[in-house]
Amino acid sequence: MSDLPKSVEIHEEGPREGFQIEPGPIGTADKIKLIEALAETGLHHVQACSFVSPRIVPGWADAEAVVEGFNAKPGIHYTGLYFNGNGMDRALAFKDKLTINGSISLTASVGFTKKNLNRTPEENIAAMRRQTELHLSRGIPVNRLGIMAAFGCNYQGDISPATVISTLEDGMKIAEETGAEIEIFSLADTMGWGAPHRIEKVLGEVRNRWPDMEISLHLHDTRGLAVANAHAALKMGVRHFDSTVGGLGGCPFAGQPKAAGNICTEELVLLCEEMGIETGVDLDHLIEVGRMAEDIVGHQLPSELIHAGSLDAFRRTAKV
Amino acid sequence: MSDLPKSVEIHEEGPREGFQIEPGPIGTADKIKLIEALAETGLHHVQACSFVSPRIVPGWADAEAVVEGFNAKPGIHYTGLYFNGNGMDRALAFKDKLTINGSISLTASVGFTKKNLNRTPEENIAAMRRQTELHLSRGIPVNRLGIMAAFGCNYQGDISPATVISTLEDGMKIAEETGAEIEIFSLADTMGWGAPHRIEKVLGEVRNRWPDMEISLHLHDTRGLAVANAHAALKMGVRHFDSTVGGLGGCPFAGQPKAAGNICTEELVLLCEEMGIETGVDLDHLIEVGRMAEDIVGHQLPSELIHAGSLDAFRRTAKV
Repeated sequence: MSDLPKSVEIHEEGPREGFQIEPGPIGTADKIKLIEALAETGLHHVQACSFVSPRIVPGWADAEAVVEGFNAKPGIHYTGLYFNGNGMDRALAFKDKLTINGSISLTASVGFTKKNLNRTPEENIAAMRRQTELHLSRGIPVNRLGIMAAFGCNYQGDISPATVISTLEDGMKIAEETGAEIEIFSLADTMGWGAPHRIEKVLGEVRNRWPDMEISLHLHDTRGLAVANAHAALKMGVRHFDSTVGGLGGCPFAGQPKAAGNICTEELVLLCEEMGIETGVDLDHLIEVGRMAEDIVGHQLPSELIHAGSLDAFRRTAKV
Repeated sequence: MSDLPKSVEIHEEGPREGFQIEPGPIGTADKIKLIEALAETGLHHVQACSFVSPRIVPGWADAEAVVEGFNAKPGIHYTGLYFNGNGMDRALAFKDKLTINGSISLTASVGFTKKNLNRTPEENIAAMRRQTELHLSRGIPVNRLGIMAAFGCNYQGDISPATVISTLEDGMKIAEETGAEIEIFSLADTMGWGAPHRIEKVLGEVRNRWPDMEISLHLHDTRGLAVANAHAALKMGVRHFDSTVGGLGGCPFAGQPKAAGNICTEELVLLCEEMGIETGVDLDHLIEVGRMAEDIVGHQLPSELIHAGSLDAFRRTAKV
């Protein structure tokens, strides 16, 4: 019936997603503290910062100071997000500390491509082709193809699986033309339109077209269905997920100021571990880090688990 | 592969679950306002109050005033919770306004039975037998068998499916001895121990033993997995759920003061409707009532959906 993976790889994006949206300001030392604490939980991938315009994202004006400041733990892949050549150069200045891989990033929604990037889909494809060439010319592999708004869009409504497939085909064409070797598709529920049925349908059609491609999901919990969506994906064997500790982050789009952020790392870990899927993460330790994140941002985070405590903690104290 | 129901019946318990735990005080008029608003959303079942000791649950000291006060909408089943003969008599005073059915309520955890009721399982079975006889002697049908802590317990740890089965057998024996006709089992994840795998396992074993019995789930979102648990149950054809608007409620047990309440009605409705399962509920209207609930309690409620807004609202405005 099901096709559960034995283990999953979780890409922790709390620092990057969270600190870009918090009204803050959050001090550089606190950002470093959270990044270093996350590295002690058993997570292998931590997206530590965003190399973006400080004018547009003031919360990451201190990206360089943060990356300089944290002590990198061996065995952890730290990454920084960027969208253009300037951001890439800023990241490359830390190429000994950060894992730098390029992505081809497209959007399944014409409306969101216009709103978010002020580009037509054709202009975006051309920009991504140039960026891919730029990466490869610097010797940086481009192995990921990401699709934003893959499950629906505030500006365009529902997105059909066929549109996701054709957007992936656009990306694969860029890869073919430039010589990039795509190893993984990342499907993002950017604005929280995913529901289990839709997740199953899109994953099914992508699998039919590219049976051997790894798939990663980037789920937002905007409407409370992210854990159910992850459950549906796990049942289809998906083993790569992005998430944020405490549910840090939020939705900067379309008038949703109080909307939740990404799927919480703790709840994703709980879901997996209770289903017998290994995460490598020490959940009790991660819950402590979630509480630290809550202290740092100074308000309650969406994670229910950090408020309730893990089951294992109760299992240990239960008087049976 | 799946066995999705065509429709589900949702039992809204927000007023009862929510107002018993809010530090409040919440005014009687506000309670009535919420109950009347819920009745306009398409929900058919509203648990309006709790006839319990005002010393133990001061939030429901005004149960009589609330039931007297609200205008009952035809076609809606309003209920009041009670645990003993005194509570039953208080409910019976409103038998023209409330739907009154008895339940046999047992607990799968010895530790929780002791902590919550200060009874051994045997004492609880005897008490439930007496209560069932009392109901039947008054002409009140007893058609529901409920099991608390069916998926785990803060005081006892994991609960095996075999324990759930044997607790249900205890309840069915009470029914047989007293002549009660059980039509539905209600399995409660009282302290938020449920995870999809456990839900599937317990449901599977209960179905094997009683293939034709209706099953209802009472899910708490204590650790963020309630929607995923509902998803797993829907896939197994479960079509009765308790829930609370906005995620009202919380966990009064075992030092979890900030823990979340029940599964949010809005998110359950969204999950169902997006999967093509009819709820009869107008989700946009329900979201407005969730926001009203948030205003009444005066703090942010766990529902993410009431903060983000429905997909249909965006579908209507999307510029395609």
